[in-house]
Amino acid sequence: MIIDCHGHYTTAPQAHTDWRTAQKAAYTDGVTPPRYPDIPDDDIRASIDASQRKLMTERGVDLTIFSPRASAMEHHFGDESVSARWAAVSNDLIARVVRLYPASFAGVCQLPQFPGAPIARSIAELRRCVLELGFVGCNLNPDPSGGHWASPPLTDRSWYPFYEAMVELDVPAMVHVSSSCNPNFHATGAHYLNADTTAFMQFLTSDLFKDFPTLKFIIPHGGGAVPFHWGRYRGLAQDMKRPPLEELLLGNVFFDTCVYHLPGIELLLTVIPIDNLLFGSEMVGAVRGIDPRTGHYYDDTKRYVDALPVSDADRSKLFEGNAYRVYPRLKAQLAAAAKGH
Amino acid sequence: MIIDCHGHYTTAPQAHTDWRTAQKAAYTDGVTPPRYPDIPDDDIRASIDASQRKLMTERGVDLTIFSPRASAMEHHFGDESVSARWAAVSNDLIARVVRLYPASFAGVCQLPQFPGAPIARSIAELRRCVLELGFVGCNLNPDPSGGHWASPPLTDRSWYPFYEAMVELDVPAMVHVSSSCNPNFHATGAHYLNADTTAFMQFLTSDLFKDFPTLKFIIPHGGGAVPFHWGRYRGLAQDMKRPPLEELLLGNVFFDTCVYHLPGIELLLTVIPIDNLLFGSEMVGAVRGIDPRTGHYYDDTKRYVDALPVSDADRSKLFEGNAYRVYPRLKAQLAAAAKGH
Repeated sequence: MIIDCHGHYTTAPQAHTDWRTAQKAAYTDGVTPPRYPDIPDDDIRASIDASQRKLMTERGVDLTIFSPRASAMEHHFGDESVSARWAAVSNDLIARVVRLYPASFAGVCQLPQFPGAPIARSIAELRRCVLELGFVGCNLNPDPSGGHWASPPLTDRSWYPFYEAMVELDVPAMVHVSSSCNPNFHATGAHYLNADTTAFMQFLTSDLFKDFPTLKFIIPHGGGAVPFHWGRYRGLAQDMKRPPLEELLLGNVFFDTCVYHLPGIELLLTVIPIDNLLFGSEMVGAVRGIDPRTGHYYDDTKRYVDALPVSDADRSKLFEGNAYRVYPRLKAQLAAAAKGH
Repeated sequence: MIIDCHGHYTTAPQAHTDWRTAQKAAYTDGVTPPRYPDIPDDDIRASIDASQRKLMTERGVDLTIFSPRASAMEHHFGDESVSARWAAVSNDLIARVVRLYPASFAGVCQLPQFPGAPIARSIAELRRCVLELGFVGCNLNPDPSGGHWASPPLTDRSWYPFYEAMVELDVPAMVHVSSSCNPNFHATGAHYLNADTTAFMQFLTSDLFKDFPTLKFIIPHGGGAVPFHWGRYRGLAQDMKRPPLEELLLGNVFFDTCVYHLPGIELLLTVIPIDNLLFGSEMVGAVRGIDPRTGHYYDDTKRYVDALPVSDADRSKLFEGNAYRVYPRLKAQLAAAAKGH
């Protein structure tokens, strides 16, 4: 079984996207947003069959851990209740995808974060998504301001109630920002990767995982700049008299394989212990073209892994085993889905 | 000849550092700062001989392109004239190092940037440093706010007068932030690398190098996350219908080799054309320890290059030739220095 831990519903039905446009306009105009539309199952099937599932089949991916479109989370927009409503309908849509294709998708939720708002509302939505919708994880935005980085670091105690809920529910978080309102930061070319790098260094300088020994984070996009600068991080930890990275955070921090060329994946597999890597592609996502040098999609990250001399045992961890470990609810969820629950 | 393009004077004499402390205190207290101290040549020699030159000799580095301590630039502190005075005394100190060791150092200047201040003052200091002090380049801070990223991107026209001066004087800029006032960003573990990644993506999405075909930037720290994600950047450029990266920016953008482990340097040399790489170590800098896995300093980046199968021609470009091309004033400056001018 090949599990892709990082897929966003970037091809959601037009009615869903149109409603978001209307919701934003209504907020701006100070009026009540329209009712969320009835979206027929066939529209959802069409939006999935023609892109996500087609590409999964072509690439040999069996299951995608699937969440709402990251760039559209826009936690910075409107107010807390706008964010809450948008998260709820986006998560409900993911739940419908999972119900329609229980063998192909597992759900991960968007959180109703908002700059400066306490994390309580996000805890409630996490509980709903995990306990009622059967989701296996969440995307946590370390910068709900969208590029102004005005919230405290992820290691600040204001986040702790959320971590308590994650631990209790036994779900991990992918650290994932949304679009950028700061003209300095291109979303997928800078903001995403910067957030990955930033979060890792926050973890490195804190005792978060002493406080929460079972808390788990996936840092996407291959860990941002981190594996490329692994020597720098080992050296910084050493200079700061921190424990070695293995001991300090590799029981809690995992990277996906969203790195879109062979030398990058090779570095990732060389530097990061195999137990800390989860196969991921971010497909359909940030980069949609075909690499003229290879004739294949840039984001077909499985091809890069397949091209490298990875042992069967390690391949099995990367593609499947580590996902079960990092998303402890995944196996039971798939079994329940297979039984039609 | 081995040229290290990235060294900061992190071991400056205590009197210099003490004066900065006094300058900051004076600003805070609203009083006049004390006179800048007389620092004897012997104090400068002692600060250089025991660290920078000792390590250069041990590592086989002949020349360091040397600038004031990056984390101490603190463009965010005080006001424009505090920044101007601090830049001037810091640059004067670099000039003294270069005069004392003309065969071992070439100067690069700190700029008197300040958040929201026009770039005019920086142009004047650049002219002074290049024309009067014989400097060969500058460090340009894309975020003088120190982690709040409140200035326009480097591709905004407000920076253009500075680029006109760079082109006229024929000097490059290293894109280099200073310390971070944003608790989200650890300086050397996140802010530095994020700035590198951010600047690259700004260049990728703009026509800056159409407007300034001879403008040159060094992106330090191995280019931040960029080489690790080279496929992502190639794919993003393609999706945006931009020209290939080679054509779009590799005539103008260069990376140093400040990557502190062998697999990272290997990736860098695999992915980035050799003409775009300059040897650099950031020594004495961000990481000061010895890697227990190798028994050598993490930042002894020459060892990683030496361990890789690089042709003599490419080694020569990386260690020397590219530096002459990117810093066009360097050769003449060294010749003049050798003659005792």
